[in-house]
Amino acid sequence: MALIVQKYGGTSVGSPERIEHVAERVLATRDQGHAIVVVVSAMSGETDRLVGLARQIDVHPEPRELDVLLATGEQVTIALLSLALHKRGCQARSYTGTQVRILTDSAFNKARIRDIDEAAVRKDLDAGRVVVVAGFQGVDEHGNITTLGRGGSDTTAVALAAALKADECQIYTDVDGVYTTDPRLVPEARRLDRITFEEMLEMASLGSKVLQIRAVEFAGKYNVPLRVLSSFQDGPGTLITFEDDTMEDPLISGIAFNRDEAKLTMVGVPDEPGVAYRILGPVSAANIEVDMIVQNIAADKTTDFTFTVHRRDYEKALEVMNRTAKELGAREVTGDTKIVKISLVGVGMRSHAGIASTMFQALAEEGINIRMISTSEIKVSVVVDEKYLELGVRALHEAFHLDKAPA
Amino acid sequence: MALIVQKYGGTSVGSPERIEHVAERVLATRDQGHAIVVVVSAMSGETDRLVGLARQIDVHPEPRELDVLLATGEQVTIALLSLALHKRGCQARSYTGTQVRILTDSAFNKARIRDIDEAAVRKDLDAGRVVVVAGFQGVDEHGNITTLGRGGSDTTAVALAAALKADECQIYTDVDGVYTTDPRLVPEARRLDRITFEEMLEMASLGSKVLQIRAVEFAGKYNVPLRVLSSFQDGPGTLITFEDDTMEDPLISGIAFNRDEAKLTMVGVPDEPGVAYRILGPVSAANIEVDMIVQNIAADKTTDFTFTVHRRDYEKALEVMNRTAKELGAREVTGDTKIVKISLVGVGMRSHAGIASTMFQALAEEGINIRMISTSEIKVSVVVDEKYLELGVRALHEAFHLDKAPA
Repeated sequence: MALIVQKYGGTSVGSPERIEHVAERVLATRDQGHAIVVVVSAMSGETDRLVGLARQIDVHPEPRELDVLLATGEQVTIALLSLALHKRGCQARSYTGTQVRILTDSAFNKARIRDIDEAAVRKDLDAGRVVVVAGFQGVDEHGNITTLGRGGSDTTAVALAAALKADECQIYTDVDGVYTTDPRLVPEARRLDRITFEEMLEMASLGSKVLQIRAVEFAGKYNVPLRVLSSFQDGPGTLITFEDDTMEDPLISGIAFNRDEAKLTMVGVPDEPGVAYRILGPVSAANIEVDMIVQNIAADKTTDFTFTVHRRDYEKALEVMNRTAKELGAREVTGDTKIVKISLVGVGMRSHAGIASTMFQALAEEGINIRMISTSEIKVSVVVDEKYLELGVRALHEAFHLDKAPA
Repeated sequence: MALIVQKYGGTSVGSPERIEHVAERVLATRDQGHAIVVVVSAMSGETDRLVGLARQIDVHPEPRELDVLLATGEQVTIALLSLALHKRGCQARSYTGTQVRILTDSAFNKARIRDIDEAAVRKDLDAGRVVVVAGFQGVDEHGNITTLGRGGSDTTAVALAAALKADECQIYTDVDGVYTTDPRLVPEARRLDRITFEEMLEMASLGSKVLQIRAVEFAGKYNVPLRVLSSFQDGPGTLITFEDDTMEDPLISGIAFNRDEAKLTMVGVPDEPGVAYRILGPVSAANIEVDMIVQNIAADKTTDFTFTVHRRDYEKALEVMNRTAKELGAREVTGDTKIVKISLVGVGMRSHAGIASTMFQALAEEGINIRMISTSEIKVSVVVDEKYLELGVRALHEAFHLDKAPA
């Protein structure tokens, strides 16, 4: 008998019928002799409905009260799922974040979990009950209701699995696992049986929105085996594991991409110590998050400084940069919103220098000009013109034989 | 400066616009220098929507989980009202039943309040905040969410007022006070400035659905001055007071009526000791509530036993009675669903024997046959044919000069 934490997202619990379907899945796992904790999100559309109500009253809703409002979404789901389990003769008990006691800090709308009191849940499990927990929410030390921010239900599931020392944390979504790249872009994309935590982190942060990045970090930190599965079809999903597993890692696990970025360059900046800080300081002060950063040294004692931001921040960043350029005596500021970032991810690339050159060659053969390059231990990212997204991803998928399972 | 508890029902908070309107009312009271606790119901229609979701899964929802579900209704309202107050620069803080700590027993769906921890609320009031509390809900000693049953928000308001020793508990509804009778039936019906607790109890239980009867009992027990007002128009409403007030009580305060009853008679029951119990025991065992009971002794050593039940229970009661009649050797069981009960209510009638005869005379003059009579300290009720409801109420309203304010 294993202890399994299952998490079902908003689409999986989007209607009473779907909730009954989830109840059937939970019972199937239970009939295999496992103890189960189920974490659920709000029914799809419910959080947006609640935010809409709040915005009708105030476009900038007060954070504490917004959390009181939003927390009702998951509370509805835990009650309905518990009702569906009861109807099937299964003893079940629902818990809000407050009732479990998922203790968080007091950062309303984006709280972080500090501690979980698993005593009550454990007692119910020991009594043979299925425990149904509201994801996304917690309580601070003063008894205020908090929420973890969008997608926080994944984090709740992983944190509960860690606290309960569960054998596996299963994240049910509307996809049946993690793919080598987006199957909508590349039909040959293949579901991975396994992926390492580090690769998953790179995949997630690069735009493969299967799992919330904080949940993956959490799982890695507490050694919680994490599995991504589909709630609509059967299958083993993708297991997210530790690198020191016995498996033979393929060179490249997958190709991620991000269409939401824009690029800004300050051209002809006097090349002095501290210039990077003087450029990025004001950007950061304006609450703009920066992703890739590249600096080239030019011949004439000036340098070009390029970075990417989210497209929604482009105009604001441009404004900030123009001010800074004047102060620094830079030649000009250029920018481009019609770009995409494509990244190769794989723990295997650490020991294989040839990865980057194979990547650049594959892109060159298709006539795709690389505008920016950035590398890390387990990924190589390039920025190319937006129009090359599909062609570039397909070329790389083929060049690295990702359609074929590793031997 | 007074401490005032205001309660707004589902219609008063039925939309974001109406919630903003409530915020304005709260601020107006606050600007008069008062400290305010606001108790709110779920937005109108919300509880029905939630019950509908539950019933889609199970027509007999498990009671604990139903309460987890229903409690979200009021939680949404406290958040939205607090947002509306914040937008207006007013410090406000919302509380769920769990957060206040409205301790109840564990009778899910119909819990009773045992204790209220008013410390946190008091602290917020002292800090100048408006406190917004979810009505209808509480928490049991094990941390389970409970609800007080429909209309329980009135009870929450009165219980909070009692715990905080508030100067007044104001119940905002869609009517502007308690009337001498239903103005839809008698256009001359007059709003009462005051009514005693006892009269209010009789009026409420007899079908004037302005206030929940438990709330009135609670207010009487803890000496909480209660005022019924309209949330849609200004006015003093009706103050519900104690009989030993200095005011001169009019003979009759009002006329209540109830269209929901049905009448059953067991004819020709052998007149033996214990027969009333043998008739009513099985009715009570079938969970049927009985209202009026009348027994006449006949000449031939048999008696006729009549009582009224809610119309929805009529068929079931008839079945039970037919079985009992056979056992007791009674002649027959008759029944009638086309009846109404009309009641005169007033503390003044205690010392005035002439009330009943004036009542019977007024009805007789209109040719209305009285089918049943029952009296108590402060009321006289008659059962008449349904078709005479309007005529009977109007005749009594005129006979007792209820359209004119007492001198």
